[in-house]
Amino acid sequence: MAFPEGIIELVESLYQQGVNEAVICPGSRNAPLMIALTRHGGFTCYSISDERSAGFFGLGIALKTGRPVILCCTSGSAGLNFAPAVVEAFFQEVPLIILTADRPKEWIGQWDGQTIYQENLYGNHSKAFFDFETDDCSLATSTALAEPRGPVQVNVPLSEPFYPEPGFVLENSSAIFQNKNLAKFKVQSSKIDFSYFNQAISSAEKILVTVGQMEDNSIFETLSAYGIPVIGDATSNCGSTIAHDLILADETAWPDLQPDLHIHFGKSFVSKRIKQFLRSNKPKQSWLIHPNPIGRPDPFLCLSHIVNTKASSFIEGAEWKQKNWNVWNSTKIATLQAEYFAQANWTEIHLYNQITEAIEQESAEVHVANSLAVRYINWTLAKFKKTEVFANRGTSGIDGCLSTAVGAAQKTDKLCISIIGDVAFQYDRNALWNKYLPANLRIIVFNNGGGGIFRNLDGARDLPELDEFMETEQGFTAENTAKDAKISYFSASKTSDLKLDAFFKNKGPSLLEIHTNSVENAEELKKYMALFKA
Amino acid sequence: MAFPEGIIELVESLYQQGVNEAVICPGSRNAPLMIALTRHGGFTCYSISDERSAGFFGLGIALKTGRPVILCCTSGSAGLNFAPAVVEAFFQEVPLIILTADRPKEWIGQWDGQTIYQENLYGNHSKAFFDFETDDCSLATSTALAEPRGPVQVNVPLSEPFYPEPGFVLENSSAIFQNKNLAKFKVQSSKIDFSYFNQAISSAEKILVTVGQMEDNSIFETLSAYGIPVIGDATSNCGSTIAHDLILADETAWPDLQPDLHIHFGKSFVSKRIKQFLRSNKPKQSWLIHPNPIGRPDPFLCLSHIVNTKASSFIEGAEWKQKNWNVWNSTKIATLQAEYFAQANWTEIHLYNQITEAIEQESAEVHVANSLAVRYINWTLAKFKKTEVFANRGTSGIDGCLSTAVGAAQKTDKLCISIIGDVAFQYDRNALWNKYLPANLRIIVFNNGGGGIFRNLDGARDLPELDEFMETEQGFTAENTAKDAKISYFSASKTSDLKLDAFFKNKGPSLLEIHTNSVENAEELKKYMALFKA
Repeated sequence: MAFPEGIIELVESLYQQGVNEAVICPGSRNAPLMIALTRHGGFTCYSISDERSAGFFGLGIALKTGRPVILCCTSGSAGLNFAPAVVEAFFQEVPLIILTADRPKEWIGQWDGQTIYQENLYGNHSKAFFDFETDDCSLATSTALAEPRGPVQVNVPLSEPFYPEPGFVLENSSAIFQNKNLAKFKVQSSKIDFSYFNQAISSAEKILVTVGQMEDNSIFETLSAYGIPVIGDATSNCGSTIAHDLILADETAWPDLQPDLHIHFGKSFVSKRIKQFLRSNKPKQSWLIHPNPIGRPDPFLCLSHIVNTKASSFIEGAEWKQKNWNVWNSTKIATLQAEYFAQANWTEIHLYNQITEAIEQESAEVHVANSLAVRYINWTLAKFKKTEVFANRGTSGIDGCLSTAVGAAQKTDKLCISIIGDVAFQYDRNALWNKYLPANLRIIVFNNGGGGIFRNLDGARDLPELDEFMETEQGFTAENTAKDAKISYFSASKTSDLKLDAFFKNKGPSLLEIHTNSVENAEELKKYMALFKA
Repeated sequence: MAFPEGIIELVESLYQQGVNEAVICPGSRNAPLMIALTRHGGFTCYSISDERSAGFFGLGIALKTGRPVILCCTSGSAGLNFAPAVVEAFFQEVPLIILTADRPKEWIGQWDGQTIYQENLYGNHSKAFFDFETDDCSLATSTALAEPRGPVQVNVPLSEPFYPEPGFVLENSSAIFQNKNLAKFKVQSSKIDFSYFNQAISSAEKILVTVGQMEDNSIFETLSAYGIPVIGDATSNCGSTIAHDLILADETAWPDLQPDLHIHFGKSFVSKRIKQFLRSNKPKQSWLIHPNPIGRPDPFLCLSHIVNTKASSFIEGAEWKQKNWNVWNSTKIATLQAEYFAQANWTEIHLYNQITEAIEQESAEVHVANSLAVRYINWTLAKFKKTEVFANRGTSGIDGCLSTAVGAAQKTDKLCISIIGDVAFQYDRNALWNKYLPANLRIIVFNNGGGGIFRNLDGARDLPELDEFMETEQGFTAENTAKDAKISYFSASKTSDLKLDAFFKNKGPSLLEIHTNSVENAEELKKYMALFKA
């Protein structure tokens, strides 16, 4: 067989531009892509059968490496199973290159097996679509990396035969592609004229900095040192110690907390309260600092300026002034919290506090799942400071939280800890159906027998439909799934069961399931939140 | 709370047009839809957490009822997880109504949680998109039912509050909607002028009828009685006894088998050989009988006429003549098969024959999974004649075969048997993560430790990448999944283990796992196929 034309060159071009990880889903149509990737020698390749899980696994790798990861699948609905991960990557701004094998064009719509309309399969949710036959696919990498980073699809029509003769050796085409397209699509941060912004910073008495989802960074310490309050959810990794969500629980305090100038860095916020607060207590100005956001995101409904640059460039480039605006101080809150947590009980809010504290003693990264887990970690007294926090907050789905953690675990020597509820865990249990469960993987499943989040929502909690149609009472535990995956299983239903140290120090991938009661959790959380209301 | 405007009317309108089943996936944004559906009283509602599985579960119900089934989900990536089922429904021509809850339009692209671009989420793979705010959604049902039947999306932007006051009673709006839109979009089968076709039928000596995927039917007996060979895969449910795929294994016989006139009914074929045969031995004419196919499907590359009517209308309306074209007779093949199967051994081809024979003794329906299962049942001596056969051959994915069977099992009193390989089973194991596993559900998992199909493909079998990147060796058995789902588990690794009778007669949903060796399976199948070659 002549190897299908252009496939080797495509793969080499991706490699030359820094792509070197590929998640390959078994299939027949994509065999030439698989062979070109695995035989190239420069790629770490993973074989994962469930494309939905494979997509998020790749996303997890890309989160850690910052480089585009290849997702490769056969024709038909396979590529659609990538869609949840593709859309998450689009909104979380994570680079992916999706190689979808396809039938030759003349067979589309001809009732041939595994044939769908694959052109632009992800619609508005991929940054670009490349037709392998007609487009310059060497632009795929740079497009995925251009701000805002994100997924691109390369659709590759392939005819039979798919399999080369035994002993077939790939020709190395490195020479041809070396650095050819590296220069294109480079982000040129436009030079910012800071005079306007410096003037505004200087004249504002009350500056509030909010930080949405961001990678680990310490750049905000500078601002805190100027007495400028910096607030962010745990997913902001900004090191803030201000318990903004609890401060804002007392709505009578909102007018005092109103800033003159609001500056937002990073992507979206988990906390709904901060959005509600700013929408009703609008600052005179609100700036969004982002290299190139998708559209004109204005979650606070007060946006006045978008500054197209990186957070670090802005913080370094602007002139900051001492402000000492102390109203966003949460010392009082911390005292209330300390008193509250001194009396432990077996409910989620207490357990999240205890576990956060314990994880901070380890060298670890955490992947916090939607939907309750990512909220709880914003409410505890213990904070993730040394521990980098990841979460799929692009679309906030529960569909791939565990797979993302498993993918990311490939690329760190630290403990990689997934904190996840039972519904999100079961939903994505195929995350554990592969051969890539590393020794540093830790999974903490909070099992309250269903989607406990709904029990905390006013209105929802009183619905007669709550149990069956919202909370999805579910009786599965994680034990059998752990058994299938051959990972160590720990279980805790009371304080004396909970051996966090043994769990963290265990050899090999491990899962800890914590059983709580969802009614008690909801009551306790209500009690806790009441402490901070007026 | 005022209940969101129009929701009750939308649900009532669907009901008035015959829709009465809804698969509802837990969420907050879709709570008003959930409440309107569950409190209406006329709908059977199912709560299923994994939207991918829920989609196929709904498809399974629709396959049995012939009526559109509602799939209802919250905003964000939830609706994307329906996509594999939606696309399967599109190509298999199964009516679905997808109600995707959405944020109000002004929040799209504003970094609000669970917000994506939901407009026309399924692209070319839904028959129509309805914007709840601007379109006449009462047309959704008739659009889904118009030939070719298929999925439609209704996107429903909803603002908070999502939950009505305790004790809120829905107003019944039946009167308003009664039969309002029933007349629209009705399929008017155009009146066929049969004179041309009758003439062609009369003058053709050699007529070959092929039947693609169809529902259970006996309409083809008429044609067989005229001595016209009717061939179809098991998914055609056409009652043919001709082993066409084995006859065609001897390529030297192809010229003798060439028809003058070829008539195709139903949708796609599984067998590749029949396509290859007709492409290289073209008939003078080839007709496709279909009320309204998507595009101009020509899998045999010889299409001359499309006749827009139902199979039954055509068979009843045309004048058939005695032909007695006997070359498509498989008596000789049957003798070879009988000799072969007389000597049993523990490989898949033998086991499929034995199981097909046993199922035919039961009152049962089977759902045959992609990829190997659906092929094996075409090669056995035993045939499904009384047993209706279903398979997801729209896109031929492995992503929802089990969920489809579980859905369909809700709507039959017969045994509902899923025949499935281990990869397809594990892929879709969340099919068993719900409360709707009826007593008539039977699952037969053929576990050969991976995607055994690739071992049968010339070229693929010799690749060094076969084990890791194609066959996906996987060590999971179905036992733990069955345990989680609380269904009876049977296992067989040798003849004496195999108690089919006990399995069929068991009380409650049951799973039988048959362990075979994938290398032995491939060798045995090769040996079997060699019997029929020249």
